[in-house]
Amino acid sequence: MIYICDSCRFLFSRAAEPEQCPDCGKYTVRRATPLEQREYQARLQGGLTGPAAKENPYDNPAFFIKYAQMDRSRQGLSAAGEWHVLEPLLPPFAGQRVLDLGCGYGWHCRYAADHGAAQVVGTDISRRMLQTAEERNAGEVIEYRCAAMEELSFPDGSFDIVLSSLALHYVCDFTPLVERISRWLRPAGTFLFSVEHPVFTACGSQDWEYDGKGQIRHFPVDRYYCEGSREAVFLGERITKYHRTLTTYLETLLRCGFALRHVVEPQPPEEMLELPGMRDELRRPMMLIVSAVRV
Amino acid sequence: MIYICDSCRFLFSRAAEPEQCPDCGKYTVRRATPLEQREYQARLQGGLTGPAAKENPYDNPAFFIKYAQMDRSRQGLSAAGEWHVLEPLLPPFAGQRVLDLGCGYGWHCRYAADHGAAQVVGTDISRRMLQTAEERNAGEVIEYRCAAMEELSFPDGSFDIVLSSLALHYVCDFTPLVERISRWLRPAGTFLFSVEHPVFTACGSQDWEYDGKGQIRHFPVDRYYCEGSREAVFLGERITKYHRTLTTYLETLLRCGFALRHVVEPQPPEEMLELPGMRDELRRPMMLIVSAVRV
Repeated sequence: MIYICDSCRFLFSRAAEPEQCPDCGKYTVRRATPLEQREYQARLQGGLTGPAAKENPYDNPAFFIKYAQMDRSRQGLSAAGEWHVLEPLLPPFAGQRVLDLGCGYGWHCRYAADHGAAQVVGTDISRRMLQTAEERNAGEVIEYRCAAMEELSFPDGSFDIVLSSLALHYVCDFTPLVERISRWLRPAGTFLFSVEHPVFTACGSQDWEYDGKGQIRHFPVDRYYCEGSREAVFLGERITKYHRTLTTYLETLLRCGFALRHVVEPQPPEEMLELPGMRDELRRPMMLIVSAVRV
Repeated sequence: MIYICDSCRFLFSRAAEPEQCPDCGKYTVRRATPLEQREYQARLQGGLTGPAAKENPYDNPAFFIKYAQMDRSRQGLSAAGEWHVLEPLLPPFAGQRVLDLGCGYGWHCRYAADHGAAQVVGTDISRRMLQTAEERNAGEVIEYRCAAMEELSFPDGSFDIVLSSLALHYVCDFTPLVERISRWLRPAGTFLFSVEHPVFTACGSQDWEYDGKGQIRHFPVDRYYCEGSREAVFLGERITKYHRTLTTYLETLLRCGFALRHVVEPQPPEEMLELPGMRDELRRPMMLIVSAVRV
């Protein structure tokens, strides 16, 4: 049986349920969920590195509070540096059934509803995020559902459009998820997502290389072909993300019956270039946006 | 009128033909070709950086001799680290009309002919490369033609397959070339190419970042969104290549009427990992292979 400690996220195997975590010693051990069990198996098989995935940092109060201060959290879509690239790639929503995986505060759900979607399902693993979504971005056609996207289940052909904004890099197993998304979509349905760019996730630190005076020298790439978990610091908290190559992102889509419509690495818009640090974002790609259609 | 110096490759404009190069002083000035003239115009408009493109380093004797020593030059396709990925992506050649842009020694032309191609046109800007191609990889259905690929012209629908191996990063203007390739191909024809990966070309130096002991620390990425020429050292010679983003490669194909079939970043094969430096190639992507079909 696989167990996990809710305090330190240590994943381990025992014949009988232990009282204490063998790593941190706290009494916060429970049986691992199916997702956590798969993570444990993947780690055993050497496909992953680093400690157990903290797959839901957004319910960590310290993280949640800091996330809430970000421009994109306070001001919504238009404050996101990639929105000017993402918005023109969105399909028409009128009358469509939309699924948003990792919907967070629900900004994209609200946008779809405001643009005539017939039904919007927003899912997120974080209860705190969904509470905010319910408060700020509720709507008659919108339903928010708390679940890990790897554990969702829908009848075939349930949706016309599947969206996911900056969430898929928290998912360990990409292929089974894309297979399921392909089935959830009707033929000719759209799957549009943004993720952190493989250049950005490869090394793990997600930080620049600096010279002795603290000036940026360049952005480091390493371990590119070593796919798996990476520990980065985001908003001052340690957070686990999964690095995948560009090959894996695109070939998985092609293999699962998608045709690629757009593959875009968004640059910050001209009017944001004077914001602190924004001009440096011209030096490396940080995000990847992919639009695909189920053939 | 635009002139170029054949010694130092200085590109400049004069009302009357000068005797000496205003840069190096040598008497090796001639009128610029249309391609060189376009390069000059592009530089004037600020679209490019660095000195004038040496678009044909392969006719530089020192470079040519060193290139001839490389495993891939001496042993052909099977000695190229990406061949095990490229070969399975090749379309069936039987009865097909094939164009190979930047064919070099003609290894791919010979492969196509050996696999039943009805007609193979191999083009390269370097006379020296084509001499070797004629010596080593001649064939009844193969015709070698010395030309810059930007200056080629064929009737619409002339080819079933267009190949290009590690040559398109020497081309300044990608879009007009892809537009022409799209016209040269019959509908449902295949365009398959490899290029140096945007991660590899972004910075310019194409070298690792080392620590004080000469050990590799990581691979640097910089100036990613600043497309244009880069001066790198390859086989000890300075050489100009053109950096383009992944977005530009893929979106240009999509815009020019291609459907993407494969986008693969090849890793070295297991059996080559013990060759000097090869294991480091797992730390960064060096090449990009794209297979596309004209819709």
